[in-house]
Amino acid sequence: MPNSTPKPFPAAVAARLDDRHDTHLDDLCQWLRIASVSSDPRATAAMDDAAKWLEAKFRAVGMPTRRIATPGFDCVYAETPPVPGAPVVLVYGHYDVQPAEPLEKWITGPFDPTVRDGNLYARGATDDKGQALTHIQSVAEWLASGTPLPLQVKFLIEGEEEVGSDGLEAVLPDIAADLACDCVVISDSSQYADGQPAITYGLRGILAMEIRVDGPNRDLHSGSFGGAVMNPAIALCHLMASMVDADGRIAVKGFYDDCQELSQSELAAIEALSSEDARMAGQLGVPMLFGEVGYSTNARRWARPTFDINGLTSGHQGEGGKTIIPASATAKFTFRLVPNQDPKKIADAVREHLQAHLPAGVNLSIHLGHGAPGMVTSIDSPYVEAAKKAIGDAFGVAPVMIREGGSIPIVAKFQAALNADCLLLGWGLDDDAAHSPNEKFRVADYYRGIRASAHLWHYLGSMSPDRS
Amino acid sequence: MPNSTPKPFPAAVAARLDDRHDTHLDDLCQWLRIASVSSDPRATAAMDDAAKWLEAKFRAVGMPTRRIATPGFDCVYAETPPVPGAPVVLVYGHYDVQPAEPLEKWITGPFDPTVRDGNLYARGATDDKGQALTHIQSVAEWLASGTPLPLQVKFLIEGEEEVGSDGLEAVLPDIAADLACDCVVISDSSQYADGQPAITYGLRGILAMEIRVDGPNRDLHSGSFGGAVMNPAIALCHLMASMVDADGRIAVKGFYDDCQELSQSELAAIEALSSEDARMAGQLGVPMLFGEVGYSTNARRWARPTFDINGLTSGHQGEGGKTIIPASATAKFTFRLVPNQDPKKIADAVREHLQAHLPAGVNLSIHLGHGAPGMVTSIDSPYVEAAKKAIGDAFGVAPVMIREGGSIPIVAKFQAALNADCLLLGWGLDDDAAHSPNEKFRVADYYRGIRASAHLWHYLGSMSPDRS
Repeated sequence: MPNSTPKPFPAAVAARLDDRHDTHLDDLCQWLRIASVSSDPRATAAMDDAAKWLEAKFRAVGMPTRRIATPGFDCVYAETPPVPGAPVVLVYGHYDVQPAEPLEKWITGPFDPTVRDGNLYARGATDDKGQALTHIQSVAEWLASGTPLPLQVKFLIEGEEEVGSDGLEAVLPDIAADLACDCVVISDSSQYADGQPAITYGLRGILAMEIRVDGPNRDLHSGSFGGAVMNPAIALCHLMASMVDADGRIAVKGFYDDCQELSQSELAAIEALSSEDARMAGQLGVPMLFGEVGYSTNARRWARPTFDINGLTSGHQGEGGKTIIPASATAKFTFRLVPNQDPKKIADAVREHLQAHLPAGVNLSIHLGHGAPGMVTSIDSPYVEAAKKAIGDAFGVAPVMIREGGSIPIVAKFQAALNADCLLLGWGLDDDAAHSPNEKFRVADYYRGIRASAHLWHYLGSMSPDRS
Repeated sequence: MPNSTPKPFPAAVAARLDDRHDTHLDDLCQWLRIASVSSDPRATAAMDDAAKWLEAKFRAVGMPTRRIATPGFDCVYAETPPVPGAPVVLVYGHYDVQPAEPLEKWITGPFDPTVRDGNLYARGATDDKGQALTHIQSVAEWLASGTPLPLQVKFLIEGEEEVGSDGLEAVLPDIAADLACDCVVISDSSQYADGQPAITYGLRGILAMEIRVDGPNRDLHSGSFGGAVMNPAIALCHLMASMVDADGRIAVKGFYDDCQELSQSELAAIEALSSEDARMAGQLGVPMLFGEVGYSTNARRWARPTFDINGLTSGHQGEGGKTIIPASATAKFTFRLVPNQDPKKIADAVREHLQAHLPAGVNLSIHLGHGAPGMVTSIDSPYVEAAKKAIGDAFGVAPVMIREGGSIPIVAKFQAALNADCLLLGWGLDDDAAHSPNEKFRVADYYRGIRASAHLWHYLGSMSPDRS
């Protein structure tokens, strides 16, 4: 799909973006004053207030809006009119926030938004009211400017992101047709570094498991029985050690078979990012970083599958010694998966590996936890190109293309349900303290986010939808 | 040292052994009524009463006795007159008992000794008042019979065996000269099986250690950092797995260098014992027994060194999952050592092994716990020969020679301080419930123990001391 000769960004919209900073900030502060803590049973009224505020905002700018009921808190939906021949974008965000505790660590009240040193401090400032609102403000200014918005934008702002998105997941199949779109835009993450915006074009998937090795029917005296039975904790260590070799390669047969390898251009892009190994090792307090041989740290964190033990439990946990052979030993572990690895298939391979490597004399039980595939958007996607230009316009520097090692299960669900690319455009910073006391969002980044969003509609609106 | 032609056992002593069953049982019941629980701060008066009862008993049979003060509870010492040219025997036992809790599980009161079905039920019946008293009664009957006791017997009955023998250990160097002897006799263990008495001629030593692997300075998000750092729990599993191979052989360099190997005659004796593998596996609830290849289960439990993990702790311990890379991981483990292995030397070898096998990217700290060497008495010792004959006379069946996988630190201390062989002559049974509710001692075994002890003095008294 060739880009047409670029049209200039409409001056009427640009003028409004420059002039309305105070209103934009006032709006956000209003929303942040509502303590919409989804995990707090006493906050149900505040949850409703936060949804109502959002509905009022949509209506005020002329967008029809409605609630989407879920088994939990409602989602708020709104849309602009369809634009034939232009892409349809779905903006996803959430109006619920993390609990504010510990309250005594906040310099100013978590629901009393306050600007200090260019930062707006409040629970939800960056996660996600501030970032979600950038897209609403940008659409609002397009609509208010009298310039026709050159594409259709749909909004789905949910109320349970901080507690697992169960409600949205439950209704997603029913509302998928309403959400039909060409790409999903999510701003709920961070820039790569201060002054270096980023587009997150890939996420890892996840597979969680727990195993239990059972030996004797009770803890045994290690003097009387040491040498008579397999020690379950030793068996567990052998099993866990067998999972990954000294080079950090996962030793499960077939594990890497379906891995989508990094393209040369991706590798080059990742290698071009400033190397932070020494700084990161220092910050984390480790003697050196470590991971699969042959890949840089960012490649390993973002785009290579990993195995991590999350917990080990066996025998005596307290102070001092206890001369026992423990009756059992358990390990909780997770794999981070990369695109094209199927969590189910990997689970089967792991199960086979564990059975094959199980030492004699003990029994093994395997519990399968949650699984979600990874996702990746082609860095050559025209939508990505549009986002790059929009971010470059707003931040004055081209964004870098990054991936994120974590998993956002709702993104994979969107991809599966909507068959649409996801653009993860983070306006925040790593030190914004999401989920911590004194959460903040830099006011300038809020404005830049609004500008980048407004420019994104411009660039996307000049494209035909990529529905190949 | 050739045995002289055996003299017959004195008829006057034999008659008393036959006639005085009721008195012997009454004596034991008196002692058992005193709740001498060394770990119970409310039982200090009872502890003193138990020591006083013992002193009175010694005095009643004409033996001078005295208290040996220790930093904890007193030891009670007594002795018969020296017999020039004959061996000196030290009998060790303890007058303290385990707590009786849980009281509601006792069919009759723990300090209300009761005979049911030929068993005497009470706390301390087998451990160790009943077994210790056999030797006192046998000496008493020799002394009362008018037949000269053909050797000197010394008694050291302590009051802190159930709480670690700290007091005795503290004063042992000071009293070693008083305790000088040719062999130590201890009855505080069990027969090999019902109807099959045994002499325990070896104990394993022990070495306890704890290690901690430290990674990042906090638990990390396994999505954001998986692939960036070595996971301390994985490093711990690799370290622990490196300690022992799939054949149950300990992989620490030099670990087996000093091991005293089993002689052909010992191996043959152990192999001649009835094989109980299937029964033991069933009782323990394991699919099969397991241990170092090339040795039978008893050889592995009694006379081969072993490695056991006693506890593992890392990361998330509760229900469900938590997607973290834990900041640290710890393992508590013990080695059981065999005679001639030096705990200090083994600790050094293990330390070296751990450092050499430490994965990159984490720090290791090693904490050294307690250590004690193993012990073994030659099965060809003339004292063992005497004990075999005495037990055969009393039980009607020759004892088997066994070793015990556990460690009794005081035995090694005696060996070191007194340079004397130890004879561990168990009159109890495996199901006597020492340390549990309804502890018992079979009355017939109490009488047999007294007889075996009386015959032991006879056989030992016919020998010259083995002071080579």
